[in-house]
Amino acid sequence: MSKKMILDLDTGIDDTLAIAYALGSPEVELIGITGTYGNVLVEQGVRNALAVTDLFGHPEVPVYAGLPHASRKDSFEVLPVSAFIHGQNGIGDVEIPDSDRSPESGSAVDFIIDAVKTYGKDLVYVPTGPMTNIAAALAKAPEIKDEIGKIVLMGGALTVCGNVDPWQEANISQDPDAADKLFRSGAPVTMVGLDVTLQTLLTYKETATWRELGTPAGRFLADMTDYYIKAYETTAPKLGGCGLHDPLAVGVAVDPTLVDTLKINMKVDVEGPTRGRTIGDNDRLNDPVKTMQVAVGVDVPRFLNEFMTRITGLAKA
Amino acid sequence: MSKKMILDLDTGIDDTLAIAYALGSPEVELIGITGTYGNVLVEQGVRNALAVTDLFGHPEVPVYAGLPHASRKDSFEVLPVSAFIHGQNGIGDVEIPDSDRSPESGSAVDFIIDAVKTYGKDLVYVPTGPMTNIAAALAKAPEIKDEIGKIVLMGGALTVCGNVDPWQEANISQDPDAADKLFRSGAPVTMVGLDVTLQTLLTYKETATWRELGTPAGRFLADMTDYYIKAYETTAPKLGGCGLHDPLAVGVAVDPTLVDTLKINMKVDVEGPTRGRTIGDNDRLNDPVKTMQVAVGVDVPRFLNEFMTRITGLAKA
Repeated sequence: MSKKMILDLDTGIDDTLAIAYALGSPEVELIGITGTYGNVLVEQGVRNALAVTDLFGHPEVPVYAGLPHASRKDSFEVLPVSAFIHGQNGIGDVEIPDSDRSPESGSAVDFIIDAVKTYGKDLVYVPTGPMTNIAAALAKAPEIKDEIGKIVLMGGALTVCGNVDPWQEANISQDPDAADKLFRSGAPVTMVGLDVTLQTLLTYKETATWRELGTPAGRFLADMTDYYIKAYETTAPKLGGCGLHDPLAVGVAVDPTLVDTLKINMKVDVEGPTRGRTIGDNDRLNDPVKTMQVAVGVDVPRFLNEFMTRITGLAKA
Repeated sequence: MSKKMILDLDTGIDDTLAIAYALGSPEVELIGITGTYGNVLVEQGVRNALAVTDLFGHPEVPVYAGLPHASRKDSFEVLPVSAFIHGQNGIGDVEIPDSDRSPESGSAVDFIIDAVKTYGKDLVYVPTGPMTNIAAALAKAPEIKDEIGKIVLMGGALTVCGNVDPWQEANISQDPDAADKLFRSGAPVTMVGLDVTLQTLLTYKETATWRELGTPAGRFLADMTDYYIKAYETTAPKLGGCGLHDPLAVGVAVDPTLVDTLKINMKVDVEGPTRGRTIGDNDRLNDPVKTMQVAVGVDVPRFLNEFMTRITGLAKA
């Protein structure tokens, strides 16, 4: 049985690249997308996930709407900086047709729990937005922490500064309490944070090869990602490209050898001025059992090659 | 030529253990101790360094008084918590005879610079207090960053919380500006911080073996370190021993294979609420040249064995 994957996305530009990476990876079967908030509202993200899976030729992938806001809040609004980076519609203000499918009627949280019960160790869950859905699933069915194959998340920053402020990464900052619950749960979590995703950069050179494919998917990917690279020229002018945050998490879920990891039991600061910081839990530093690992190094050329091969292959077909 | 070592100490209990480790290591020659402030005032630290080198049978080691306070302050007072952990006299309130030697008349900063000029790549400098002296040396003679063998410091916390507050380690907190200058200088620095030193713990079991030696040095080490372990029972009740902070830095200076390191260009936050935090410098994340490395893992049993072998051997003689 091939590995089953669930993507939990606030679809978003790099979330869309993450969908493409997953669909372009023969090692995994994308059994569903659960929607979250962050780059966009849940409704917009779900709309985008349905539309891009159609465009990529995979209308069989079910999409579920997840929880619409953080566990300790009662609403969510898209930050201006998120709209600047991802566009008003979340996919770089590029227009693609709506899907004629609707989101699934069931709850995203139940879908995640059911998938763990069905696939167990063969399931990998990849959240690339806030950890709200998985924290709710763990609250409802705590035993899934021992039953799931692994969780590979995009979020956090252990050895580098955050992108919201010097200590907070955007996904974690949306719901620090949910992320802290996940980190302390004992579930097998790999954190793919800014430590490595700010090393894996894409430029106009790569997007040009997609445009040259001449396919609708290739043009869409090129136009959307160019919007993202352009936004990065403003938000991170020294970086020299856009960070491939979400697709790197998918890459690591497919092939863990792309990164070097540090085995360390983590927590999220939920109190005090550094609320939202991801950091080692000193109380569990000398616990011989480490349930988490954090990517601290990445084989950049190999990942970029895998990224381009898989996504270009998908967009060509 | 054997490796030459300078220890820069606020002598202190674990600083004294660091002196013992260095003197018990045939691979290095301790060519001098430069005094700093922190656990104690410079004057008290210098007094202790002279007294313990005498007690350990090494009155040939010169001791220099360094700068008495942080680069951006005009005075220094010992914090109550430092006196609680190290005792009023810095060595667990154990009485040992004053040395009949005086500190050297020259400046500690000039001694460091001269030693780099004399020994170059054979010199390893090990600061285990604030980075004030080395920052002053780098300001006066910037070229030493390329001429020195290496700098192995005890300080900072990259992957775990601080011990002053959730983001600050004590040595760095005393002079964040000096540490930031060192980290950004391009000098070959290995940071041995709380990430690893909170994993290397000593207990009453080990100190008992020193007491049983029946020598003045053995009794002194046992009594002094028991004071430190007892203080840790109050300040860090969950830890299960005292952290071997400063001696681990000496251990790594002697044998770098004791730790796993992450090569990363570091900085210290000098502005904002996280002033004093040690963290990767995002602006130099993708610079292929890494001048720093941070210890993120340690071979605990091997270090503890080396620690006990070297110090017990010294105390027996």
